[in-house]
Amino acid sequence: MERFFNAKSVAVIGVSSSPTNLGRAIVFNLMEFQYQGLIYLVGPKGGAFAGHRIHQSVAELPEVVDLAAVLVPARAVPEVIRQCGEKGIRRVVVESAGFRELGDDRAELEREIQEALVRYGIRMIGPNCIGIINRRTGLAVPFMPMRAEAPPGRVSIFSQSGGVGATMINHCAAEGIGFSKFASIGNKLDVNECDLLAYYQDDPQTAVIFGYLEGIADGRRLMETAARSTKPIVVHKSNRGGAGAVIARSHSASLATDDAVTDAAFRQCGILRVADQNEGLTAIKGFLLPKMRGRRLAVISRSGGHAVMAADAADEFGFELPPFPDELVKMAESHARAGVIQFHNPMDLGDVFDLELYEKLAQQTLARADIDGVLFIHNYQGIFDAEGSRQLVKSLGRLMQESGKPIAVCVFTMQKELELNRKSAGYPIFTDPRDAVRALAWNRDFSRTPRPVFATETPVGIDREGAERLFSSCGDGLVPPDILASALACYGIATVPWAVASQEDEAAACALRLGYPVAMKTAALHVVHKSDVGAVALNLADDAAVRDAYRRLSGFGPQVLVQKMADPGMEWIVGGRRDANFGPVVLVGLGGIYVEVFKETAMGIGPLDRIQAERLVEQCRGAAVLRGARGRAPLDEGALLETIVRLSWFLYDFPQIAELDMNPVRVHARGCMALDWRAVMHQA
Amino acid sequence: MERFFNAKSVAVIGVSSSPTNLGRAIVFNLMEFQYQGLIYLVGPKGGAFAGHRIHQSVAELPEVVDLAAVLVPARAVPEVIRQCGEKGIRRVVVESAGFRELGDDRAELEREIQEALVRYGIRMIGPNCIGIINRRTGLAVPFMPMRAEAPPGRVSIFSQSGGVGATMINHCAAEGIGFSKFASIGNKLDVNECDLLAYYQDDPQTAVIFGYLEGIADGRRLMETAARSTKPIVVHKSNRGGAGAVIARSHSASLATDDAVTDAAFRQCGILRVADQNEGLTAIKGFLLPKMRGRRLAVISRSGGHAVMAADAADEFGFELPPFPDELVKMAESHARAGVIQFHNPMDLGDVFDLELYEKLAQQTLARADIDGVLFIHNYQGIFDAEGSRQLVKSLGRLMQESGKPIAVCVFTMQKELELNRKSAGYPIFTDPRDAVRALAWNRDFSRTPRPVFATETPVGIDREGAERLFSSCGDGLVPPDILASALACYGIATVPWAVASQEDEAAACALRLGYPVAMKTAALHVVHKSDVGAVALNLADDAAVRDAYRRLSGFGPQVLVQKMADPGMEWIVGGRRDANFGPVVLVGLGGIYVEVFKETAMGIGPLDRIQAERLVEQCRGAAVLRGARGRAPLDEGALLETIVRLSWFLYDFPQIAELDMNPVRVHARGCMALDWRAVMHQA
Repeated sequence: MERFFNAKSVAVIGVSSSPTNLGRAIVFNLMEFQYQGLIYLVGPKGGAFAGHRIHQSVAELPEVVDLAAVLVPARAVPEVIRQCGEKGIRRVVVESAGFRELGDDRAELEREIQEALVRYGIRMIGPNCIGIINRRTGLAVPFMPMRAEAPPGRVSIFSQSGGVGATMINHCAAEGIGFSKFASIGNKLDVNECDLLAYYQDDPQTAVIFGYLEGIADGRRLMETAARSTKPIVVHKSNRGGAGAVIARSHSASLATDDAVTDAAFRQCGILRVADQNEGLTAIKGFLLPKMRGRRLAVISRSGGHAVMAADAADEFGFELPPFPDELVKMAESHARAGVIQFHNPMDLGDVFDLELYEKLAQQTLARADIDGVLFIHNYQGIFDAEGSRQLVKSLGRLMQESGKPIAVCVFTMQKELELNRKSAGYPIFTDPRDAVRALAWNRDFSRTPRPVFATETPVGIDREGAERLFSSCGDGLVPPDILASALACYGIATVPWAVASQEDEAAACALRLGYPVAMKTAALHVVHKSDVGAVALNLADDAAVRDAYRRLSGFGPQVLVQKMADPGMEWIVGGRRDANFGPVVLVGLGGIYVEVFKETAMGIGPLDRIQAERLVEQCRGAAVLRGARGRAPLDEGALLETIVRLSWFLYDFPQIAELDMNPVRVHARGCMALDWRAVMHQA
Repeated sequence: MERFFNAKSVAVIGVSSSPTNLGRAIVFNLMEFQYQGLIYLVGPKGGAFAGHRIHQSVAELPEVVDLAAVLVPARAVPEVIRQCGEKGIRRVVVESAGFRELGDDRAELEREIQEALVRYGIRMIGPNCIGIINRRTGLAVPFMPMRAEAPPGRVSIFSQSGGVGATMINHCAAEGIGFSKFASIGNKLDVNECDLLAYYQDDPQTAVIFGYLEGIADGRRLMETAARSTKPIVVHKSNRGGAGAVIARSHSASLATDDAVTDAAFRQCGILRVADQNEGLTAIKGFLLPKMRGRRLAVISRSGGHAVMAADAADEFGFELPPFPDELVKMAESHARAGVIQFHNPMDLGDVFDLELYEKLAQQTLARADIDGVLFIHNYQGIFDAEGSRQLVKSLGRLMQESGKPIAVCVFTMQKELELNRKSAGYPIFTDPRDAVRALAWNRDFSRTPRPVFATETPVGIDREGAERLFSSCGDGLVPPDILASALACYGIATVPWAVASQEDEAAACALRLGYPVAMKTAALHVVHKSDVGAVALNLADDAAVRDAYRRLSGFGPQVLVQKMADPGMEWIVGGRRDANFGPVVLVGLGGIYVEVFKETAMGIGPLDRIQAERLVEQCRGAAVLRGARGRAPLDEGALLETIVRLSWFLYDFPQIAELDMNPVRVHARGCMALDWRAVMHQA
């Protein structure tokens, strides 16, 4: 990646002297951003632009450039890449559109490109993108003319959409926070978000990473890369399925991912997922502040109403508001004009007009050991107190640097004043207390410590070969329940005691062996909703009942599953499926009818360890019942967690399992067991 | 109110020639906003300011002014009001702080003020506020200097906090939408939010009403006033309890209301409650557009990525995206430059550079009968296409007016360009597709048809006198279960068949009469958690079991309630309590253990009609089970609704009932009945 972003020379391929030529905009941007390297132009018609000769072919270039920015018709791209390869150019950005996003018949073009990349050892960004910008070297190759507005900043951006990426640059400029590096990655035929993520993580000029994605190239690599990061990663993943899927397909050739799986995967690997650009910006601003190391927040506000909002938000986002110490309260009181306001935390300074005191209060508050961060709300109309207010805002930045603690600063004033502050403050400014507190909460909650995202230690006592042998006879489709139960047993996952009977006498014998009462159900694979069609018999208490049930159930087929009736307990569902992007997805939730009504489920990407399993259970509100809500005896959560962990390995080890459900898994005071199980196999 | 906002002459009371005098800022604002009436100044030290004589007392004023703006120390306010009264002034705005918000010992001052108001028939806004502004007449009496920025707009604002109110004015100015009228109402000693709400509703210069509240003066009047409105009402109610409550008390003397009750009340009367200022602004902007009359949305976007976000948001907020008709697609295609983009809804115009075509597409889309509104996303950097883009944005406003359908316009560009558009567009501009779609959804969902907010028809067969007689013997505290059940029966609310027994033989006789099996529990009022202490016996199948249970239960006291065991069914909770702000609050939710774990409850302010009761049930996810989820037989929802309606009247008729719970109410295939009931009485 370094060779893309720090290219010392660039060839813009696809320039002509026509005024509507888009390649010229690339040259414009290199000028506007004051590119420090050499620029060469290529276009079949020759001529000149911006004082540079337009070479008629890549071969004619006087030197081997570090980077080629290609904007020629889609059909010409493979040949241009081959020419670059012959010339010795090893980095290209292809901005041309007209590939897979127009339909699968264009896939052939992409294959040609890939062949050329491999043959010449070229790395490519694109196609169907607007290219990259390095704000510090001035390397800026988008084909839409842009302005180099705010000074270089500390957030680096990757975006699957050029338009959205450019908008984020505008937003960051308007906020006065600028950006460091930018990459529009389009169809991601070669370089994808994982490459950028890894590069930005190591880039000393990047403090925060923001990404906009419409599809995910390699879910597991993305998770592993993100989990290694010591820098906050904020991703706006759109294309949630439904209406968005159609347009995303034709915009950046992205297939929809299961949106709930994406949520779960991002949570697991520590990516903060935001729902829109505003949230994205709030998150970036929050992460640009020093790390908030605890929950103890001091609020200082010139406006009482905003102090009330801040207190509401502190509650909402889990902050504590320790009282101000007496000496600070006294200091504020001694400067109060009319003595008409009381001082708490939040401290309402509406009656104090001395802006230097504001600064002193902030400084002394930051110095306190019992405060982890400050929300400072300043409200001025800019008529009397403009200069002093701007000075105050600047000073808060200095205090923040000195103390190493975050100050989220809200400024309420006229638009023009706000912009002046944004230009001069040197840190992000908020305009809504709730937004500021949310940003602090994200800052606080995001761990910057790398950790493994998937479990590494296989649980003890797993007989993988045993399960493999059992599955070896299975084709695609539903797995026979006895085979599945045996395979689960190889992984130490308990099912209720069961047996298969093919005759009435055998059924009776099984029941006797298992112990009454028993349940029976057809083992015929074609019967899907067994209860609905009467293919289940429960609570059979004696031999006669079992024989009677067998005769009825054998109407569905001779094989019948006989199960011991399990003791009462709490019902959960533990299941999962194979996701095309992320691999084995484990689903945990309340079982029985509640799984459908309340949808209290949580997902994780396997293999999971026990702590991760516990987090999934905690995400379901039913966890309270498990732990003994309302004075009930607690149930065996540990057994449930063990089942989740083992199932995650089961799904990981057998990618041919497309879906698997254990519903319900009944959790008792000691142990838990699946009462019903079902899996569909699909060999890749 | 009219006499406040259209005052033809104003006396500013509390002006001096000291440079730190705040009264001078009031005069400054009257100048800045170009007040069209006469200005008089009053201050004990006399002198002159801004060319006006400072009269030394109210009595000296040369005429009876329409309005007095008072900013004198709190202790002097009552006397100033009396002087105004003597002079014949009938409208005052008291901006001074230092009343109840400092503590209850200042309440005496407020009482004095109220006496003076009554004696002279004066209406007052404040105290502890920054006063009012009429943007069109220039009447502007805040004591903080402000700028008259954007031209007059169509939103009118009331705010309990002056600072927050001023901020909303700044926000509206920055958005280019301005405002019409503004009132800061502070401690609301006389005029409160209901007065303003009623006035703004009738004010022809107001199209949208925005309020910021920290407390609620008269909940039921607020609900009734809001429900009569044909204009959208947006309220940011802060002070949600917890940390906010302390600071709100000392900021605007506001007591916290139960936040969930406020939510329910606002929903019931059609107030849109927003969580922060950003949401408030989004809502105002959405309501300033023409009414969205259906769910059919067309999205036209210059940026594919934003089109994807728009499609996601359309799903999220319940819009349909009908396909564009062939002729429009062909029109777009014929102007596409590289032919590299397909046209759907959202329509991605990234490849079309003809801005006049954009306008034509918007116009023809609005003309379609199958489209209720448009989201138009324009993305430009302002280097080549600034003039054309601004023209386009302006034209969209014209199209909106002509068609009477809303266009939510998102503009992505540099900050400077954005501001130029905001100044010239004449309608609100968005900067995030999701925000814009949310605004359209609020616009669509808000009914502008007045409707009764409380039920008006008493259900048939209510014996109010009967219940009154029963309660006449009850003091404060828990109501004996037999009296409560009988009183509920007077309102047609079914309880499971029951009887009270005071002796073993009597218990046995009751059980026989009710029919086995029965349940028994102590009727002793002091036993609160009956199950936990063993004061309940269930499933008593015969005489011996009943006698045995009686002997055990009589340990808690001789009186025992005998109840028939009810058939199985679904358990709900129906209850309620008296709220200080809103009166009878009815609570409906899933019963049993789930009420605590899932908190699936909904609240309404009584009395409720059947449709309102149904809405409460629908808010609980358990409603699906009630209606027969997963092939189960549906239960008697009608009986549950009838119980809710009748309970709401019960609570309405008996304000002495502080809390009442029927938990569970068991719903059967036919009918429903309370199995347990409990009420606490508190005579006012």
